[in-house]
Amino acid sequence: MNAFELYNPTKLVFGADKVGQLGELIEPYGKRVLLVYGGGSIKTTGLYDDVLFQLNKIGAAVFELPGIEPNPRLTTVNKGIAICREEKIEFILAVGGGSVLDAAKAIAAGALYSGDVWDFTIHKAVIQEALPLGTVLTLAATGSEMNGNAVISNWETKQKRALGSKQVYPRFSILDPKLTYSVPPNQTVNGIVDIMSHVFEQYFSLTTDVPLQERFAESILLTVIENGEKALADGRDYDARANLLLSGTYALNGTLPNGVTTDWATHGIEHEVSAIYDIPHGAGLAILFPNWMKYVYKERVGKFVQYAVRVWQVDPTSKSDDEIALEGIEATRAYFTRIGAPATLGELGIGGEHLDRMADEATRFGPIGSFKPLTKEDVLRILEASL
Amino acid sequence: MNAFELYNPTKLVFGADKVGQLGELIEPYGKRVLLVYGGGSIKTTGLYDDVLFQLNKIGAAVFELPGIEPNPRLTTVNKGIAICREEKIEFILAVGGGSVLDAAKAIAAGALYSGDVWDFTIHKAVIQEALPLGTVLTLAATGSEMNGNAVISNWETKQKRALGSKQVYPRFSILDPKLTYSVPPNQTVNGIVDIMSHVFEQYFSLTTDVPLQERFAESILLTVIENGEKALADGRDYDARANLLLSGTYALNGTLPNGVTTDWATHGIEHEVSAIYDIPHGAGLAILFPNWMKYVYKERVGKFVQYAVRVWQVDPTSKSDDEIALEGIEATRAYFTRIGAPATLGELGIGGEHLDRMADEATRFGPIGSFKPLTKEDVLRILEASL
Repeated sequence: MNAFELYNPTKLVFGADKVGQLGELIEPYGKRVLLVYGGGSIKTTGLYDDVLFQLNKIGAAVFELPGIEPNPRLTTVNKGIAICREEKIEFILAVGGGSVLDAAKAIAAGALYSGDVWDFTIHKAVIQEALPLGTVLTLAATGSEMNGNAVISNWETKQKRALGSKQVYPRFSILDPKLTYSVPPNQTVNGIVDIMSHVFEQYFSLTTDVPLQERFAESILLTVIENGEKALADGRDYDARANLLLSGTYALNGTLPNGVTTDWATHGIEHEVSAIYDIPHGAGLAILFPNWMKYVYKERVGKFVQYAVRVWQVDPTSKSDDEIALEGIEATRAYFTRIGAPATLGELGIGGEHLDRMADEATRFGPIGSFKPLTKEDVLRILEASL
Repeated sequence: MNAFELYNPTKLVFGADKVGQLGELIEPYGKRVLLVYGGGSIKTTGLYDDVLFQLNKIGAAVFELPGIEPNPRLTTVNKGIAICREEKIEFILAVGGGSVLDAAKAIAAGALYSGDVWDFTIHKAVIQEALPLGTVLTLAATGSEMNGNAVISNWETKQKRALGSKQVYPRFSILDPKLTYSVPPNQTVNGIVDIMSHVFEQYFSLTTDVPLQERFAESILLTVIENGEKALADGRDYDARANLLLSGTYALNGTLPNGVTTDWATHGIEHEVSAIYDIPHGAGLAILFPNWMKYVYKERVGKFVQYAVRVWQVDPTSKSDDEIALEGIEATRAYFTRIGAPATLGELGIGGEHLDRMADEATRFGPIGSFKPLTKEDVLRILEASL
């Protein structure tokens, strides 16, 4: 086990109708609130009204930044930063899925920084302080509700980059499974793939003798696999939605990487695809991950054998390690297909035109990942296999 | 899944030689430090010198409270509180196992309270504030390093009681597996039983459809079972010690009870035994838990079947649920016996004289536990089965 630090001060408030606690949760931070949200589905579901009711109850002055894109854009983040400065915002409330939460984090950090918020993504500056923020999550996927990370896109330069800091951990996150009842099947699917991919990036590691972290990862995968199908069969299955929501949080709240060398190469490759084509993150990951697995599994076939047996109940009897590993990878692909995720870039109308540029960008600082460090050529092979 | 809140701001610093970070971790809180420790084993191992070296490096004024008992006593806690007041202590550093950590928490809360610290254990007062504290853990067992709970004993009245508050979460806890190399086998055994018991209290629940929490619990049990035997075979096996240490923390850091109705009856009964006989907590739990299991399993036999199959790999083929469940319970007892834990109170020289008083005290506020709420008569039956 490697040395590590674990620190996560976000307060998770989990359960039906917990939006009713919003006022008391925000009040300690101030009353000038920037409400950040996405495409307006929160107005259809009534959540917008519920949130405003709670904010009005504490007499908050509410400013709004609607229209956060699925891959949140730097231009939109900058609009939010401008509002924070002009209106002396004291607290940012993000209501939505991962994109909304990520945008809110970037705004929170950018509002107290004199330079360009993009600086944080290119390591030109480090986040020293941020406005306090809280979230009401409406989608099981991101993990952003309980960590200090965010991903934003620069649409002009077609770049998608991450920023991270302890300063942007949400002070609280409200997770009400009922708020995810209205998530349509395709977004539920993308969320499932996103959660599983977050686990993969931390599970497929060369670090040995970390049985607790491995079992925690397998626990999340098994729970998502079961409950993903249940939630797709009945979007209003409270426990299925709750189990997905909690799994999404634990996949990325610092539980899995304790003492483990993680990878994140596939996320890096996917970011380059969706930076150019603006496809849903989960869809890109569903296409890429099984191809990454096939490309790298020989680096530590035993881990893929364990994955196949424990997660997919592959029967190892009289099979070679390679056979067992590949069966587990095929089971992954079959599950993604069964729940309706795409298997090829072609299905999303993406051809081979920009693969070279994607591979180039993905490896701009050198090889990516740790399970098998991938050069530009490696990334290109994985992208080609994904066409 | 029930509604729940999850909040845990303790910073865990995990890895070999992390005591070297002690100075920088304490410095933000002040320089007048109360060092709390136990029976002096930290002097034999050299840890005491290492800690003092780090404290001297930041120019701290160090006051000492040695001699914390295995079941820490109110009188000792009151000594610590007196030092805090007289010496205007700014930070409390606990170096040791669960008893030392628990005593430090009680001191931290009592130092800023005008009444008797015992008030917090009998719900006569609620902890409003506490001195900041940090810990260097030397034993895998307690979980106290990453939660806001403590148990102290009033030796005059023979009462052992708990206190808890967000105010007494350690600001940091340093977990160096090497510091547990010198833990003797019997204490390693007690730690293993303690960790497993903490999991049991949260795992054997009537709450249904919480698959993630159940699998997390099973993950800890499996890891402890494997690594417990490894650590006993070779006390200097770094990974075995690391896996035990991390398991102990996760068993009681708020991961398992999310949305689950927990029990804690067996801990309650054990506290009554060790309040009178001053036996190690882990030894008491090893005796009591399998007897509690046998007494209650029929309340939800399916959970005990799952436990037997997933944790002990009991083959369920052509067995009744009762048979499978009982086989899992027997496997628990067999494991405890294999690692050297006691199976009866008699082995510790405890007879039946005070069973009635223990049962009376354990149920002083009414039936205890939730899996099967236990009346005084129930507790008496379990204690009698443990003789």
